[in-house]
Amino acid sequence: MRSIADLNPHTQLCAVIGNPVSHSLSPAIHNRAFQELGLDFVYLAFRVEDVGSAASGMRALENFRGLSVTIPHKVAILQHLDEVAEVDAQIGSVNTVVNDGGKLRGFGSDGPGARQALAENGADVAGEPVLILGSGGAARAIGFDLAHRASPSSLVILGVVEDELAALARDLGEKTGVKVTGELLTDRNLERRVAESRVLIHATPIGMHPREGESLVPPELMHADLAIMDIVYNPHLTRLLEDAEARGVKTIPGIEMFVNQALFQFEAWTGERAPRQVMKQVVLDHLTRQPG
Amino acid sequence: MRSIADLNPHTQLCAVIGNPVSHSLSPAIHNRAFQELGLDFVYLAFRVEDVGSAASGMRALENFRGLSVTIPHKVAILQHLDEVAEVDAQIGSVNTVVNDGGKLRGFGSDGPGARQALAENGADVAGEPVLILGSGGAARAIGFDLAHRASPSSLVILGVVEDELAALARDLGEKTGVKVTGELLTDRNLERRVAESRVLIHATPIGMHPREGESLVPPELMHADLAIMDIVYNPHLTRLLEDAEARGVKTIPGIEMFVNQALFQFEAWTGERAPRQVMKQVVLDHLTRQPG
Repeated sequence: MRSIADLNPHTQLCAVIGNPVSHSLSPAIHNRAFQELGLDFVYLAFRVEDVGSAASGMRALENFRGLSVTIPHKVAILQHLDEVAEVDAQIGSVNTVVNDGGKLRGFGSDGPGARQALAENGADVAGEPVLILGSGGAARAIGFDLAHRASPSSLVILGVVEDELAALARDLGEKTGVKVTGELLTDRNLERRVAESRVLIHATPIGMHPREGESLVPPELMHADLAIMDIVYNPHLTRLLEDAEARGVKTIPGIEMFVNQALFQFEAWTGERAPRQVMKQVVLDHLTRQPG
Repeated sequence: MRSIADLNPHTQLCAVIGNPVSHSLSPAIHNRAFQELGLDFVYLAFRVEDVGSAASGMRALENFRGLSVTIPHKVAILQHLDEVAEVDAQIGSVNTVVNDGGKLRGFGSDGPGARQALAENGADVAGEPVLILGSGGAARAIGFDLAHRASPSSLVILGVVEDELAALARDLGEKTGVKVTGELLTDRNLERRVAESRVLIHATPIGMHPREGESLVPPELMHADLAIMDIVYNPHLTRLLEDAEARGVKTIPGIEMFVNQALFQFEAWTGERAPRQVMKQVVLDHLTRQPG
């Protein structure tokens, strides 16, 4: 087991920046993975207010290899990067930075993480109608990623923040060419759209603290051809997933996407295949210890 | 023993910045000391070209607690700090930075490290004539520190770089009020000044790679009332110290100052008493492994 005393002039640093960061699981997940593979990396957490200085500091510090970027800096970090993929520029935020010898490359791992979670769990997106509940940052990242890379037959977004919803539906339609509908989340729209969909992705905060035990989707709407992914991972089994399981509907818990997004970050920084099981176990252990 | 997997969102970072840094002993010394005391710190090394961006990055990254600053940034770092003690401003360089909640405080630990090495080894400076060989950065740091804080009866600096020597003697005289003489390092001056001195501090690169085995001080000049400190610590026993030991003259090896300067840094960052013996042992172990 590598100890602190083994750190040396070649050890590389990765870190999460955000505000706050004191409850981040990322240090536990990535350090456990570095340990597992015997990689000469450490992962820390930095509370940051001035994201521009943090980025130029990273650029100046040669062994500072990677960043996870979290709230409130996912959008602001963009203007401090040297390279961003088109899909991430369209999304307008990234959660990952790789420092290639002073050149900062950013990308989002939430969309790919969600897409992989769907694929690994047998929820086909290609040629199928997909419904996303919510129009915030996560919905936007997932919507663009699926539209660009997974060929859904259509995307329907149901949301409650009208401007944000309209912008997301418009941007998706204009920039990806996929067939997109944005509608207000009403009982009537929900009933109709769930009935039409094969994949439902829940991307709102309902079901997590302080709204544990709540769900947007009445169980009676769930049908046998539906797969339901919740991006809420704490609690592990949300009310939405409980209801879906009780109805015999395929479920994909939020932890799958959460672990995958960390895995894409890890692989981008280290160039190594991430140890998925140990990373997932860190999250599970943590959720078990948590009251909420 | 703390492992990499124990790192968490509260872990604090210290690091050496310089160019190059790949052979720095500082990560080994400080991480071993953090380990010994069970402190939640890690120490890394960053090759840096843009020292201003490194400093503002440190300011922006809340858990980035401390820096060791080495060549070529010891002078340039000064203009990026918020607070520097008067003695360090006079010296014109620092090798240590402490980040107090976004406020960067710098100081030099070489001078205090040398002064403590002399005191711990019974080489009295107060009221005694002190001779320094060399007029570079180390001589300057030690000269100012002793002049301000150890009350020598006089300081003589013998050097070969005329402008640098003149500037050091002038600055010391004007800013500290101590009686100072700067002279060219000639055989004749050396003979006279060694005879007059009680403490001789060797602060030139003679004796270290690629000039191992060389010494500036002919053994026959060494007298019973003299104490000789070499700031060269690799090799552990320089020709100068070998000759002095053979003459029965008190010697203070460079490792004493080297360990002390690390110790002052460690204590400034952590607020804890540094574990001197384990830190020294790291250096000794490394020197033993080194061919030179």
